Amino acid sequence: MIYFDNAATTQPYKEVVDTFFEASLNKFYNPSASYLPSFNLFKEINGYRKQIIEYLGGDKELDNVIFTSGATESDNLAVFGTCFNKHKKYLFSVGEHPAIYNSAMELKNRGYNVEFISLQKNGQIDYDDLERKCDKDVCFVSLMSVNNETGAINNLEKIREIIDKKTENCVFHVDAVQGFCKIKINVKKCKINLLSISGHKIHGLKGVGALYISKGTRLKNINYGGGQEFNLRSGTVNYPAICALTRAIEISFKNKDENYLKVLDLKNYLTEKLKSLKSNVIVASDSNCSPYIVSLIFEGNRGETIMRYLDSKNILVGTGSACSSSKVGNRVLENMKYTQRQILGSIRISFCAKNTKDEIDKLVKELQNYFTNVNA
Amino acid sequence: MIYFDNAATTQPYKEVVDTFFEASLNKFYNPSASYLPSFNLFKEINGYRKQIIEYLGGDKELDNVIFTSGATESDNLAVFGTCFNKHKKYLFSVGEHPAIYNSAMELKNRGYNVEFISLQKNGQIDYDDLERKCDKDVCFVSLMSVNNETGAINNLEKIREIIDKKTENCVFHVDAVQGFCKIKINVKKCKINLLSISGHKIHGLKGVGALYISKGTRLKNINYGGGQEFNLRSGTVNYPAICALTRAIEISFKNKDENYLKVLDLKNYLTEKLKSLKSNVIVASDSNCSPYIVSLIFEGNRGETIMRYLDSKNILVGTGSACSSSKVGNRVLENMKYTQRQILGSIRISFCAKNTKDEIDKLVKELQNYFTNVNA
Repeated sequence: MIYFDNAATTQPYKEVVDTFFEASLNKFYNPSASYLPSFNLFKEINGYRKQIIEYLGGDKELDNVIFTSGATESDNLAVFGTCFNKHKKYLFSVGEHPAIYNSAMELKNRGYNVEFISLQKNGQIDYDDLERKCDKDVCFVSLMSVNNETGAINNLEKIREIIDKKTENCVFHVDAVQGFCKIKINVKKCKINLLSISGHKIHGLKGVGALYISKGTRLKNINYGGGQEFNLRSGTVNYPAICALTRAIEISFKNKDENYLKVLDLKNYLTEKLKSLKSNVIVASDSNCSPYIVSLIFEGNRGETIMRYLDSKNILVGTGSACSSSKVGNRVLENMKYTQRQILGSIRISFCAKNTKDEIDKLVKELQNYFTNVNA
Repeated sequence: MIYFDNAATTQPYKEVVDTFFEASLNKFYNPSASYLPSFNLFKEINGYRKQIIEYLGGDKELDNVIFTSGATESDNLAVFGTCFNKHKKYLFSVGEHPAIYNSAMELKNRGYNVEFISLQKNGQIDYDDLERKCDKDVCFVSLMSVNNETGAINNLEKIREIIDKKTENCVFHVDAVQGFCKIKINVKKCKINLLSISGHKIHGLKGVGALYISKGTRLKNINYGGGQEFNLRSGTVNYPAICALTRAIEISFKNKDENYLKVLDLKNYLTEKLKSLKSNVIVASDSNCSPYIVSLIFEGNRGETIMRYLDSKNILVGTGSACSSSKVGNRVLENMKYTQRQILGSIRISFCAKNTKDEIDKLVKELQNYFTNVNA
């Protein structure tokens, strides 16, 4: 099986699953209980918070990290945990992941003043549009680090500059699911208030994520129960999953630069090889994008059919975002001004550092087969 | 280490962790993706839904089960996913777990008409009080199956009868976290609409739970994202954790009756042995309670101090609910009309079928030591 859908989910590192296994069986205590074995787990978890804050470039003595069931929960908490005032303005991009985009739509339904920033042709947000829409009423901006469909990297420093120029005390949330441990992110430099992390996109486990919270950021809980995680996230603290998440981050972070170069080489190899195809292909992910995600457009073809053909050859690729279980059009490519005909022909290749050029050769060969024989 | 805090969390079965390990490494695909390996996982998950519905006595063709990050999420979804009308009445007991109780308080804060049912001295809800508070305005009743602090078993059939006598189309939610796989529960017989399940209380994993939904029960999502789980629970579907949950349920359910008798024997042995103690002890969990949970009151002593002493002897017991990270009094024992002096002296012993009489001997011996030497 050749797996090119790492933006949908990744295979966990063996070390991550081992960590989980060991912690589940031998350190199964409820970290909120009052006896020593539980207290020790709790202390250990607090160490992991600091470790993650450091990886993000934050202040481990002042900032905080809370653990959630995944990025969707982190994103929901960031949006609904900061909406204190209906008279203020809340900004999002149209390119956000459904966990943010649909939360923004819900906020709008509830009567909040919500506006959306457009994308440029390269997939990044339109910085001029952000500047136009930023004013002193804006209290919250949520923009992703790396787009999950195109790999487009938003310039978070530039975004913070625009926010600071036009607003006061604005909370800046970043969905860093596709960026963290892959590209450079520094919460201090960009004065990021809230940042969402997912485990299973960086060879960790599903069902665990985190939310970074900078010092002084006002946040209210959105679920109700035992008051765990500083009263921001109720539910039994999932110590084994938190260990596994931290282990995945450790490994991914340590190899970040090396992996980046490896994957960049894969992307360049793929785009070069694609030129040999007998079908016109648009690489919608330009050279400024994260190399981990490559959006390809085969105009006049159906991406879904290509995906199914490749599936039959044991090559797994994505069509649009696999995070979304109901696929209705493609908001991101549409906003990048691709035509419906082009969007219909799109597939997404997403790499991890374990992918090889040999796998790319097989992919391109099968694409060739598809265009010359199957779809002739 | 002697572990008597199984109501807080349990050690996962080895088979459960093995299942998770295998699924995480080899079937890591995103179940919402469109290729065959993902589709197969999705089909498998749908089979697990049916399996769990059958264990609950529901109709596997008509009812549904969705998977969540745990019982706190299931409980929150049950409460906030059914609150459609501020002019209707919502009933809860004062004995509910914080995941329900604090959700009910939040509902009240939001202006909903919320009322609480009292407990009897035996820890069960006061059925007369329920009957008094039930009227045609009541649209939602949430009452737990087994109380997490006392083991008191609420008579769900009787509750449904009262509801049906006094209300119309009332949704009945049951937090079955301490009851499922331990005592008999039949959703059809009791016409239960919604029922919450936790993995880690039945030797499954933390971070996964489920919500049973009977056919025709109106429920709206409370989080926003990719629309997984029939649009009721967004977030990447956690296939490995769902397999592990189902495995834990399978094993626990298969051994339900045998385990019950084993644990009942342990409870009887404990209560008998306690008579030898030089301290007066009240067993607040009467013989109608689930034997898995035994609430003990050592009047004039501090439960927390006893717990710490036992901890130092490698015996782990609970004080009140360990699910609650901030302990403020004890709502449950208070409502059962125990005095503050009695409540201060309470500890919770909670069993699993792996506990032994030998462990109980050690517990009682250390309690004896505590009362004769340490606390002399």
